[in-house]
Amino acid sequence: MALVVVGSVAYDGVETPHGRVDRMLGGAATYISLAASYFTTVKLVAVVGDDFAGEDAGLLASRGIDLTGLERVPGGRTFFWQGVYSADMNDRTTLRTDLNVFADFNPKLPESYRREPYLLLGNIQPALQAGVRAQMDGARLAGGDTMNYWIHDFRGELLETLKGWDFLLINDSEAHLLSGERNLRRAAAKIQAMGPRTLVIKRGEYGAVIFHEGCHFMAPGYLLEEVFDPTGAGDCFAGGFMGYLAGRGVAADGAPLDFAELRRAVIYGSIMGSFCCERFGVDRFRTLTREDIEARYREFQTCTAF
Amino acid sequence: MALVVVGSVAYDGVETPHGRVDRMLGGAATYISLAASYFTTVKLVAVVGDDFAGEDAGLLASRGIDLTGLERVPGGRTFFWQGVYSADMNDRTTLRTDLNVFADFNPKLPESYRREPYLLLGNIQPALQAGVRAQMDGARLAGGDTMNYWIHDFRGELLETLKGWDFLLINDSEAHLLSGERNLRRAAAKIQAMGPRTLVIKRGEYGAVIFHEGCHFMAPGYLLEEVFDPTGAGDCFAGGFMGYLAGRGVAADGAPLDFAELRRAVIYGSIMGSFCCERFGVDRFRTLTREDIEARYREFQTCTAF
Repeated sequence: MALVVVGSVAYDGVETPHGRVDRMLGGAATYISLAASYFTTVKLVAVVGDDFAGEDAGLLASRGIDLTGLERVPGGRTFFWQGVYSADMNDRTTLRTDLNVFADFNPKLPESYRREPYLLLGNIQPALQAGVRAQMDGARLAGGDTMNYWIHDFRGELLETLKGWDFLLINDSEAHLLSGERNLRRAAAKIQAMGPRTLVIKRGEYGAVIFHEGCHFMAPGYLLEEVFDPTGAGDCFAGGFMGYLAGRGVAADGAPLDFAELRRAVIYGSIMGSFCCERFGVDRFRTLTREDIEARYREFQTCTAF
Repeated sequence: MALVVVGSVAYDGVETPHGRVDRMLGGAATYISLAASYFTTVKLVAVVGDDFAGEDAGLLASRGIDLTGLERVPGGRTFFWQGVYSADMNDRTTLRTDLNVFADFNPKLPESYRREPYLLLGNIQPALQAGVRAQMDGARLAGGDTMNYWIHDFRGELLETLKGWDFLLINDSEAHLLSGERNLRRAAAKIQAMGPRTLVIKRGEYGAVIFHEGCHFMAPGYLLEEVFDPTGAGDCFAGGFMGYLAGRGVAADGAPLDFAELRRAVIYGSIMGSFCCERFGVDRFRTLTREDIEARYREFQTCTAF
């Protein structure tokens, strides 16, 4: 059973202390799909211009990603984002955002996507996310990501959207902003009361915490020797998390979510985020194998068991 | 076999978003000793003035802490520190530091302390730390803590001192400053090459990582519902860590350090740091029991196993 992924496919210009790339494949839905593709079949929904390169579509297709829902706008240009990271890579400054065809993105799911049980909504306008959710009203496990901008300026729409979600993945500063609580446990309780019974709070290099039915599980971040480019790490976390659950068929039959599977999904999320940072952009996914992923899973076990 | 603890015993004035206490028992050696006392016999070395209250000595004695090495300076006043925490308690501003009798602290170990196998040096001037180490040259497991001030202004002395240490416990910003490396793994490798084969890097609310013989282990921070006062949490971590190892007799016979025991020691460190934050100052230790600690150990297992 496949995972439907909705969000941005873009070109990025990125500068980190390790180098600079003027234009490369990027976008939340790209990173999510690539990470998830190691675990399950992915069906992508996004929009690009006619500048979208054949080799980039080829990379996605080579990972088995269904591109039926990848709309191409004739005469349009693909979303472009440019940013520069601070020396410690914990902050980044946006230098340029050209929404281009993404400005009018109004995702319409192909018929062949609508009966899938799994839906992961990348960070787009909350009303659009709700619209996709409505097109997949049979989904067993649906949820996604959001960001400070929507939390702050589209709060009403976002709260309405969250009511229909089974899970939400956000980072700690977004959790504070959404809940008004500084304390992580109390923030989580407030957010769960908004709709998503399963909440993953990402903490950057420190890993992530998942909250579910009064329990929580803490996954550390992998200690990389070298972070080349953190772009997309959070999206790869989401892709690894939901890709693993979809690949295992968790809750597809309407059974309750198994917390043991959720824990493993968080570890796979952390793993996919860590691989993402090892090269610029999506480069790591050109060579990464499922065996590499399993080796890192065993490393996580070694580094956390007591 | 006992753990010898050397450092400051002080009075603190502390303000956090939860309240304010003008004067209460504090100091690194106080927190270390109280935390370690749940696991092993502690022998304290520190200096106080004749304003040091009988009830404060009584609290330490009630936990079985040997006060033979607690020097009292007639006519002197005890070290006083006053500080205020930021709203999120991640930063603090020192309002006042009166070193008082601590300015002339030159620790001299009682004869009854010198043949103990375990030594934990709180954050004092590196040359004084080295002097204590020399008085306990038979110690099997010796090390301690330091801070930005010594790393920056007493670098030569500190590097000399570190050569004689088996372990070092510092926080992540100190690790960066000491090693010149931002990356945690590379920072750890450089610091281990300075002397301490076992290195614990504390990461505040995110827990800690221990590096030992090419391996590492990551312990999360306990997710408290409410942090009342973070003062002393890092020292309680150190006390829990070394207290556990001493209580288990680890390496007392000259055997190599067992990494499984080191992992558990880091978890106990994280636990003792978490309890410390639940009340102002040392208050939590007035009621805390070993059973409470074991219950939290089991909670850590539940929240981290996958």
